Amino acid sequence: MEIKALAICGSLRKDSYNRKLLALAKKIVADMDMECAELDLKKLDIPMYDGDIQEKGLPKSVLAAKKEIENCDLLLIASPEYNNSVSGVLKNLIDWASRGNNSFDGKVAAIFGASMGQFGTVRGQLHLRQILAYLNVLIVAQPQVYVWSCDKAFNSDGTLIDAKTADLLKQLIAGSVALVKCKK
Amino acid sequence: MEIKALAICGSLRKDSYNRKLLALAKKIVADMDMECAELDLKKLDIPMYDGDIQEKGLPKSVLAAKKEIENCDLLLIASPEYNNSVSGVLKNLIDWASRGNNSFDGKVAAIFGASMGQFGTVRGQLHLRQILAYLNVLIVAQPQVYVWSCDKAFNSDGTLIDAKTADLLKQLIAGSVALVKCKK
Amino acid sequence: MEIKALAICGSLRKDSYNRKLLALAKKIVADMDMECAELDLKKLDIPMYDGDIQEKGLPKSVLAAKKEIENCDLLLIASPEYNNSVSGVLKNLIDWASRGNNSFDGKVAAIFGASMGQFGTVRGQLHLRQILAYLNVLIVAQPQVYVWSCDKAFNSDGTLIDAKTADLLKQLIAGSVALVKCKK
Amino acid sequence: MEIKALAICGSLRKDSYNRKLLALAKKIVADMDMECAELDLKKLDIPMYDGDIQEKGLPKSVLAAKKEIENCDLLLIASPEYNNSVSGVLKNLIDWASRGNNSFDGKVAAIFGASMGQFGTVRGQLHLRQILAYLNVLIVAQPQVYVWSCDKAFNSDGTLIDAKTADLLKQLIAGSVALVKCKK
Repeated sequence: MEIKALAICGSLRKDSYNRKLLALAKKIVADMDMECAELDLKKLDIPMYDGDIQEKGLPKSVLAAKKEIENCDLLLIASPEYNNSVSGVLKNLIDWASRGNNSFDGKVAAIFGASMGQFGTVRGQLHLRQILAYLNVLIVAQPQVYVWSCDKAFNSDGTLIDAKTADLLKQLIAGSVALVKCKK
Repeated sequence: MEIKALAICGSLRKDSYNRKLLALAKKIVADMDMECAELDLKKLDIPMYDGDIQEKGLPKSVLAAKKEIENCDLLLIASPEYNNSVSGVLKNLIDWASRGNNSFDGKVAAIFGASMGQFGTVRGQLHLRQILAYLNVLIVAQPQVYVWSCDKAFNSDGTLIDAKTADLLKQLIAGSVALVKCKK
Repeated sequence: MEIKALAICGSLRKDSYNRKLLALAKKIVADMDMECAELDLKKLDIPMYDGDIQEKGLPKSVLAAKKEIENCDLLLIASPEYNNSVSGVLKNLIDWASRGNNSFDGKVAAIFGASMGQFGTVRGQLHLRQILAYLNVLIVAQPQVYVWSCDKAFNSDGTLIDAKTADLLKQLIAGSVALVKCKK
Repeated sequence: MEIKALAICGSLRKDSYNRKLLALAKKIVADMDMECAELDLKKLDIPMYDGDIQEKGLPKSVLAAKKEIENCDLLLIASPEYNNSVSGVLKNLIDWASRGNNSFDGKVAAIFGASMGQFGTVRGQLHLRQILAYLNVLIVAQPQVYVWSCDKAFNSDGTLIDAKTADLLKQLIAGSVALVKCKK
């Protein structure tokens, strides 16, 4: 069985720590011989959600994003935490992609995040779990992967200094893949 | 003492039910002889938050929004619920306005919302309360104002059919104004 | 494969609407030829969690509850909502059963609830999902089952008046059973 | 104006770190020349909430707790985090005290907590804020006080090693007292 993953970074910043974390997730997926596409939100340049725009038809960028999401089995979402929640960027993508049909319906997601602070996106991930559950996206209960003090968390080669967190990320993806297999 | 209110609608749609609800809140504020400006997010056309853009300086639209927020005492926020949380549109505004300095610092907010469904934005408002508390925005504990089945909730003159909800909105704003006076 | 379910009611009241809802869930499980035990919290009379008691050894009532939980594959939890969250009764059970070893580890749960109000335990279930995810309990993303205005929701024979909600409860349990099978 | 505080510890354990943190809060309140009573939950020995018991009349222990809560202006609540939420012990108290009349109505609360883990009760406090808002209890937006790695957080004289957290606790109580004065 072939499993297709899709990587999504909730931060647009080029040197974002969440992008680094996502790169590690993509590497794990590649090592498991799975395909992994990436949704490049900076390039797609999706507009802010607006019902008046939707009425005239979903924008091309939104249709492209929806197609990518529908084509995948497993979402890898690196979600920064801004102001205790997910980024507006990620929420806006989700708001568009749930319009027309719900492109997320029945998917499995592995979510994780990095923050400069003490709490490593724990509050943002709680919101994201709730949002994705509403859209019928299944997420493993455990492990939950948080990278705090993220400016000091990575080696120069991009790997995580903390071996335990690196291992949790592997477990998270393995557990998520198991759920995908179960659903297929 | 002069109190300045600022109205924000989390939906960009012209005929949005949250905009209707916001109009009622603005009317209540006007009846209390307070000024009320409005942040027109459709006109401002704020870009998606991007740290790379921020590094080059906050965009003019963001600076304009930040100035409006900083000039007010009381925020009136009509927040739709998309996918169990606040709209990406509103979250993106919040993400920008908390950059540089936190423009929301020390404000009081009255939040309310309308949805087509059974639950009247109760889940979205829980997220918004948490987000705004993080930004040091005070919100009264009660009342909490939810408008469900919103396509059937308004009279043709824009008032709410349900007198109890209309009254709760008044109580919410009166209670919020009392908090502003207390802080001044 | 034999699947064992365990029914838990978060309300101690004899005529509780959540107990009625739980009875329907038990009936669905029986119709699928699965065993279903029940954790009788009124009879067990578990004390309030106290670390000083724990130090002297887990009470017999707690050990009995832990054994029942560990023996099951699927938890059926009817959770009332008190003050926006799960009942203290249910939380106290969870607090004890997660001590020593985590008796919930790796289980699947189907959660649902009934309330007199408009929102049908939606806020309490959000808390319960978060609590159980922490304990490594998997819950389907959808459907989510809410019974509002519960004093008018049941027929005299104990079935639900609203056929759609009755069907959602069946779907919830079928989806949860599928997750159990997948994990075995 | 005389302000009366009431201290509540969500843990029954005698040597609980939350009790230590509560002792610091009580000291701050005493230094501001305010009275501070304490609700001794271990001594009160409140039963689990049960509607069948309530129907026969609220138990004496519950009536005593309700009276104490109603007599105070400011609640000081040290809340441990068990399984991502408040303790069942604290929730059970809240469930009882909101019955008959809502004894918490119109109060101000200062909430804080200590945990062994990395996150210092941040998730439990989010639940508690939501629960208390429902009961019309006002809580300052900021500061929020979290004590993590609590087994290493206290000096032998019971003060906090981290001066910044100690200062935040003072700010939290000062801000809460200001809200009480404003409400009176």
